[in-house]
Amino acid sequence: MTTNIIREMQSAIEDELKSQVNRINEGSTKIFFEMISYHMGWTGENEHEYSRGKRLRPLLLLLSSSLNGSNQNWRRALPGAAAVELIHNFSLIHDDIEDKSDKRRNRPTVWVKWGIPQAINAGDGLYAMSDLAAYDLIEHFPSEIVLKTSRLLHKTCLNLTRGQYMDMLSEGSDSFSLEDYWMMITNKTAALIAASTEIGSILAGLEENDQEMYRQFGHYLGLAFQIKDDILGIWGKEEKTGKSNLNDLVTRKKTLPVLYGLQQGGNFSNRWREGNIEVNEISDLSVELIKEGGLLFAEESAEKLSEMAIKLLQIISRSGEIGDNLYSIVNQLLKRES
Amino acid sequence: MTTNIIREMQSAIEDELKSQVNRINEGSTKIFFEMISYHMGWTGENEHEYSRGKRLRPLLLLLSSSLNGSNQNWRRALPGAAAVELIHNFSLIHDDIEDKSDKRRNRPTVWVKWGIPQAINAGDGLYAMSDLAAYDLIEHFPSEIVLKTSRLLHKTCLNLTRGQYMDMLSEGSDSFSLEDYWMMITNKTAALIAASTEIGSILAGLEENDQEMYRQFGHYLGLAFQIKDDILGIWGKEEKTGKSNLNDLVTRKKTLPVLYGLQQGGNFSNRWREGNIEVNEISDLSVELIKEGGLLFAEESAEKLSEMAIKLLQIISRSGEIGDNLYSIVNQLLKRES
Repeated sequence: MTTNIIREMQSAIEDELKSQVNRINEGSTKIFFEMISYHMGWTGENEHEYSRGKRLRPLLLLLSSSLNGSNQNWRRALPGAAAVELIHNFSLIHDDIEDKSDKRRNRPTVWVKWGIPQAINAGDGLYAMSDLAAYDLIEHFPSEIVLKTSRLLHKTCLNLTRGQYMDMLSEGSDSFSLEDYWMMITNKTAALIAASTEIGSILAGLEENDQEMYRQFGHYLGLAFQIKDDILGIWGKEEKTGKSNLNDLVTRKKTLPVLYGLQQGGNFSNRWREGNIEVNEISDLSVELIKEGGLLFAEESAEKLSEMAIKLLQIISRSGEIGDNLYSIVNQLLKRES
Repeated sequence: MTTNIIREMQSAIEDELKSQVNRINEGSTKIFFEMISYHMGWTGENEHEYSRGKRLRPLLLLLSSSLNGSNQNWRRALPGAAAVELIHNFSLIHDDIEDKSDKRRNRPTVWVKWGIPQAINAGDGLYAMSDLAAYDLIEHFPSEIVLKTSRLLHKTCLNLTRGQYMDMLSEGSDSFSLEDYWMMITNKTAALIAASTEIGSILAGLEENDQEMYRQFGHYLGLAFQIKDDILGIWGKEEKTGKSNLNDLVTRKKTLPVLYGLQQGGNFSNRWREGNIEVNEISDLSVELIKEGGLLFAEESAEKLSEMAIKLLQIISRSGEIGDNLYSIVNQLLKRES
């Protein structure tokens, strides 16, 4: 992920994001602007490149917009790249409230610093700005394309809320099935990654058939990405994930390894059904879940899905540097520890 | 507000809203759909036409779209009308959490019934659906017009969050000025009403100059509307407003009568600066605020602003039934008790 083109894109994404968010940098909304700058990782305590997150979605969008194109065409797509990252961050601010997560990227979350009411409102502001960012595509693209992009983004946001609804429901539900799980992560995670690669292909001017392949590539990548997240949520190290220290076993999240474990009807499943799991039980219980095959099943599922993604990538990427970069991103995402 | 054309519009608005929200009416998101149907006033305990609110914004949009047009042209604008009402309701769900309001339209608010996390998410879903509604204008309008409408809606949403930020900040601030107040209510309330009348004029195919007049009409109407709300928030009767029984004096909202009272430096201001006001003090303190001129000042301000709105209305409405209806809506809004 550190070739020249990637570095160039990353720096351009950051500039575009800052210029988009700058619209609320006014005297009368000073702290409003501060909340969002903090959340975006630009300011505040322990500010560090890491505080910004991976900027994965805008990078995927830009790379997808240039897979078959000329050298610097991706710059025209920057407002779209900013839009997907702003949506991602709007949903993170709200998710952190909804999940009571007190840490993100190793720093206190927005609601912890400014309270729930202001944090809800800051998330809403980011959502609104994501659309205004997408609108700026009008400088280089016809109205039809901008409108298509914008509609896809809001459809995706509706899917995010569908997925988040199911996620919250799952915590207290005994009847949450594997089928529910796939629908949940398709909406909660894969939808926005799929929208990123699809929008890239739309802005590259590809045909509808090709757009669908890009969408599928993002879809499978997104599913694999979420399962990797599920694995890190139980077996990841807090200092690396930068998230709250609440293990997913404690918050009773219905992740893929857990759903697999519940199906086995063994020790793991018995303990889970007894009710709340304490922090001091995590170590033993997560080993039990490994013994019963939960980790292996999740790893194999992630592996299979990423193979699908890579197969699609091989079809859509004609050749060259951009395709290689995408391939290396897919690989890094699956080997990551954070 | 009960002529034939108004009744026809109201019924068409309700149908359009239902059809827009119906996109989440699926087995996997059953309760998600239920939350939103409840908030929209279609289902749940004590469901009644009154639970739906006034549907003021979509009505203004439709009337504005047909002021100078032919008879049934307003039907083409229905998706836009639904969009502004969905935005209004998204912001109400979030505002109710932010303001800790437990009642709206005489019923428990969404967060009271389903908890804060689900209520945040339901609001987000409504926001996303508002854009998808606006997109449906594409059936009768060119891409440029749909895109312009959509951009105006999201700009308005960003302004809503700006205004809401200032509103929340004002409660704990000693330096909140009248100038801050006007900026706050311009964003928090007038912006969406102005967007409704402006979008009406855009969809009517009017020239930019005329669009600006419609926007101004909505702007002044919105300011007057908010000041009337300020008055009801202190001197209104709970069973009529249908809102939580927390008087604005108790929640320390910086409304126009209060800001006026604070400027007088009399008994009202002294008591306010001493800190929290108890429920049993409301009666005396609100009489004190009347004595010091706070009610009169607010009433005169609302009167002046609505005169501005009516003057603009006289210029833009050529004549006939639609203009008369708008005029009667303006009057009713200012004489309302809820």
